[in-house]
Amino acid sequence: MAIKPITPLLTLSLIFLLSLSAASASFRSSSKWVPRFLGKSSLLTKPQSMTQQQYQYETRYFDQPLDHFSFADLPTFHQRYLINDDHWVGPSQLGPIFLYCGNEGDIEWFADNTGFVWELAPRFGAMVIFPEHRYYGKSMPYGSGDEAYKNATTLSHLTAEQALADFAVLITDLKKNLSAEACPVVLFGGSYGGMLAAWMRLKYPHIAIGALASSAPVLQFEDIVPPETFYDIVSNSFRHESTSCFNTIKESWDELVSEGLKNDGLLQLTKTFHFCQKLENTDDLSNWLESAYSYLAMVNYPYPANFMMPLPGNPIKEVCQKIDDCPDGTSVLDRIFEGVSVYYNYTSDVDCFQLDDDPHGLDGWDWQACTEMVMPMSSSRDTSMFSAYDFNYTSFQEECWKEFRVKPRPKWITTEFGGHDFKTALKMFGSNIIFSNGLLDPWSGGSVLEDVSETIVALITEKGAHHLDLRAATAEDPDWLVEQRATEIKLIQGWLNDYYLEKKPFSDM
Amino acid sequence: MAIKPITPLLTLSLIFLLSLSAASASFRSSSKWVPRFLGKSSLLTKPQSMTQQQYQYETRYFDQPLDHFSFADLPTFHQRYLINDDHWVGPSQLGPIFLYCGNEGDIEWFADNTGFVWELAPRFGAMVIFPEHRYYGKSMPYGSGDEAYKNATTLSHLTAEQALADFAVLITDLKKNLSAEACPVVLFGGSYGGMLAAWMRLKYPHIAIGALASSAPVLQFEDIVPPETFYDIVSNSFRHESTSCFNTIKESWDELVSEGLKNDGLLQLTKTFHFCQKLENTDDLSNWLESAYSYLAMVNYPYPANFMMPLPGNPIKEVCQKIDDCPDGTSVLDRIFEGVSVYYNYTSDVDCFQLDDDPHGLDGWDWQACTEMVMPMSSSRDTSMFSAYDFNYTSFQEECWKEFRVKPRPKWITTEFGGHDFKTALKMFGSNIIFSNGLLDPWSGGSVLEDVSETIVALITEKGAHHLDLRAATAEDPDWLVEQRATEIKLIQGWLNDYYLEKKPFSDM
Repeated sequence: MAIKPITPLLTLSLIFLLSLSAASASFRSSSKWVPRFLGKSSLLTKPQSMTQQQYQYETRYFDQPLDHFSFADLPTFHQRYLINDDHWVGPSQLGPIFLYCGNEGDIEWFADNTGFVWELAPRFGAMVIFPEHRYYGKSMPYGSGDEAYKNATTLSHLTAEQALADFAVLITDLKKNLSAEACPVVLFGGSYGGMLAAWMRLKYPHIAIGALASSAPVLQFEDIVPPETFYDIVSNSFRHESTSCFNTIKESWDELVSEGLKNDGLLQLTKTFHFCQKLENTDDLSNWLESAYSYLAMVNYPYPANFMMPLPGNPIKEVCQKIDDCPDGTSVLDRIFEGVSVYYNYTSDVDCFQLDDDPHGLDGWDWQACTEMVMPMSSSRDTSMFSAYDFNYTSFQEECWKEFRVKPRPKWITTEFGGHDFKTALKMFGSNIIFSNGLLDPWSGGSVLEDVSETIVALITEKGAHHLDLRAATAEDPDWLVEQRATEIKLIQGWLNDYYLEKKPFSDM
Repeated sequence: MAIKPITPLLTLSLIFLLSLSAASASFRSSSKWVPRFLGKSSLLTKPQSMTQQQYQYETRYFDQPLDHFSFADLPTFHQRYLINDDHWVGPSQLGPIFLYCGNEGDIEWFADNTGFVWELAPRFGAMVIFPEHRYYGKSMPYGSGDEAYKNATTLSHLTAEQALADFAVLITDLKKNLSAEACPVVLFGGSYGGMLAAWMRLKYPHIAIGALASSAPVLQFEDIVPPETFYDIVSNSFRHESTSCFNTIKESWDELVSEGLKNDGLLQLTKTFHFCQKLENTDDLSNWLESAYSYLAMVNYPYPANFMMPLPGNPIKEVCQKIDDCPDGTSVLDRIFEGVSVYYNYTSDVDCFQLDDDPHGLDGWDWQACTEMVMPMSSSRDTSMFSAYDFNYTSFQEECWKEFRVKPRPKWITTEFGGHDFKTALKMFGSNIIFSNGLLDPWSGGSVLEDVSETIVALITEKGAHHLDLRAATAEDPDWLVEQRATEIKLIQGWLNDYYLEKKPFSDM
């Protein structure tokens, strides 16, 4: 059967965060694929596979101003949030509130796949709240996704600052209604949500006492980290498994270009890679492969994911075995197809692959990447297994203009949230942030990888990938993951203890 | 001669900050006068009296986005800033940058009347920069004040958050151009500018290492301080000088109302108070008096101001002497006129007084008060010398709607910047802010009056008034003022030392 690769996944691991559509050509069809956190079409609708929610919560809506920072006469919108207070010890005991900073997707996905927060709640007597990010899921301005995503004007208020203000206004109102003003709030977030958590801790220190920012590449802007960082880490994960696998992938780019130039070359490539429709150019194929390798590095988890679209544990190892173990004489491109099938077709039930046929479809993250979230990415032929690509801001800007009629502000995020000389600023003036990262995750290179101070700490796992720590505990968790979560719990407990010490007169202790 | 009371003042003391028009009925003609920091018509144009600037600087313009927090297709505007690097030791020595957070007026006023910053520059080898607040002076969106102030839509981006972002973007760009990224920025500000300085330190800890927030009533929102605070402090200043003066003023409100109800009562009052035009109601007169008393309390400085519109030193003492020293048998209202003439006509060259004849004129602060800066103010008959008035949010909201077609967001400032439980939040998570206040200043009651932590400190002067410490030193400065400034210098030096210690490897020291 032909599976359209936009079917979202739900797996034991973080792979829920990705949909296969993400592995398609992204919004810049035939341009360089741009790394992203989440799958493209995963952003607006809940996966059909997710028939049952894993955790108990109530769904509510809150009326938010569309623009917190101006007083233009704009409509409000209904922000969805999920809430559970079963374990909350309440205001009299200053019961904590755990707030997950919803990121670029349906908040139910995040709730169901952030088991760590749910598992912590009873231990801490905490309330749990998952507010949805504006312009995603059911939190659409202008009444619907179609209206919200209509053009640059309707999209204009899809920014991180507005999302943080949404969280701040919501939690302030909620606490007031519960007479829980004095209850401490702890923030959680993964990936872009982790960036939001860290930024919220910096911007709203009066609202949240600390943040666990998992796999949050807050330094992946401007020239703070080298633009090759992401693809170098992806490449290292493959090289680490097998040098010949790495080399085969490295050779493949030229192969497929020269194949594409032949008579009927595109038809031949369409056959080799089992696409349902004929390839229009080799760029689409390159992007399809690049995104697979990149996502594989992100979800290179130590245990298998066994849902309807399963991936094995250590999927890169598996990919490389497929590539390396082909019989002698197998062509480079045939090997590549064998390898990439682990990602696109592990269950062997896909007959042909579909490239995303709607590169102009709705996608909030593309908008965010074209406005604030400008993360320059290049690949080096010397240090990576990818073909050489230099990020060119002028072209990037032009494509954003073409796509959205918007001009990016590439320096805004670091101006607003810091980044340059992050260490000095945060060491002296920030506190209570955990930056947790797995070094297999290509996004880890843009995060904070060493302790900034006693209270801004980096928790690194060598074998971890994209925000694995936020997942529910499983019997298969390796020791290093169990330890990482235990350290996180200890740090959060420390923040709470400090807060209680400050709040309560000593005579009460 | 008839002086229209909108003529701005320029005096030795802070009185430059006020224009007499502020003493008129404010934008809500015949409604309760609302305390404000600055005079109404002082906000858009530079006083004609200010023919010569006191300090040397270069005037430049910087292109700013109108909305930093959305990507709507809006025009940019030219933000004016004043800059002087004569004393700057430059990037190689990490020379500090002193930034005054421009508030609701022409930035040249603030530059010329914030001598403290200019006097510090050579001592610290600092660059000095005075950026103007958007929608004031020459920093007008849409090309002109008329266009910028046309309606609620054009005014909608006049907010504190946007102003802070302007400062952040400007200083980041400036530092980059000078290769001065590592040079520490210290913020200064008085009144609303002091609030901006404190908030900027909280919101942009990566941009500024500390803030001197002089007379900044950051807690004058919602119910954080009692709404009677402002008028109680005004009243106490009068009571402190003379109980009989206090009592005469207290009696006068009923007197003038009953006088106004008589046949030809308004005409009589017009004569008693020497107005050029006939009073239309007694509310206008009450507002005219209330605002005079309030401004007198704000500028109740220890030394005289001898400019074209001079005030004596300790002006409240003078007012009360006039009220008390009238011959026996002088009526209450005649006494009041004698007293208030110290404020409105110290030089005795005014023949008749003019109430503001354009209550609907341009005024950015009125817009700010009707949107974010909602500071509830009541007066109590028991504790103050004013007639009883209870702040009514519903009426306030209605008047703002009538005036601007805008709905205030009274809880936004505390959500965005903190305020409730300020101490716990800042003690744990903020640093390097000086809240300086003179207790004679009625705004002091809404500021931070005790140390929050080792690095967030309150500097109180019992006899100080509205941000006197930011003024240039004079030979008449009392010891307590000299000491206050010395402490401020020591604290700022401490912030810089900490920063340098952090930046420089120990081997360099």
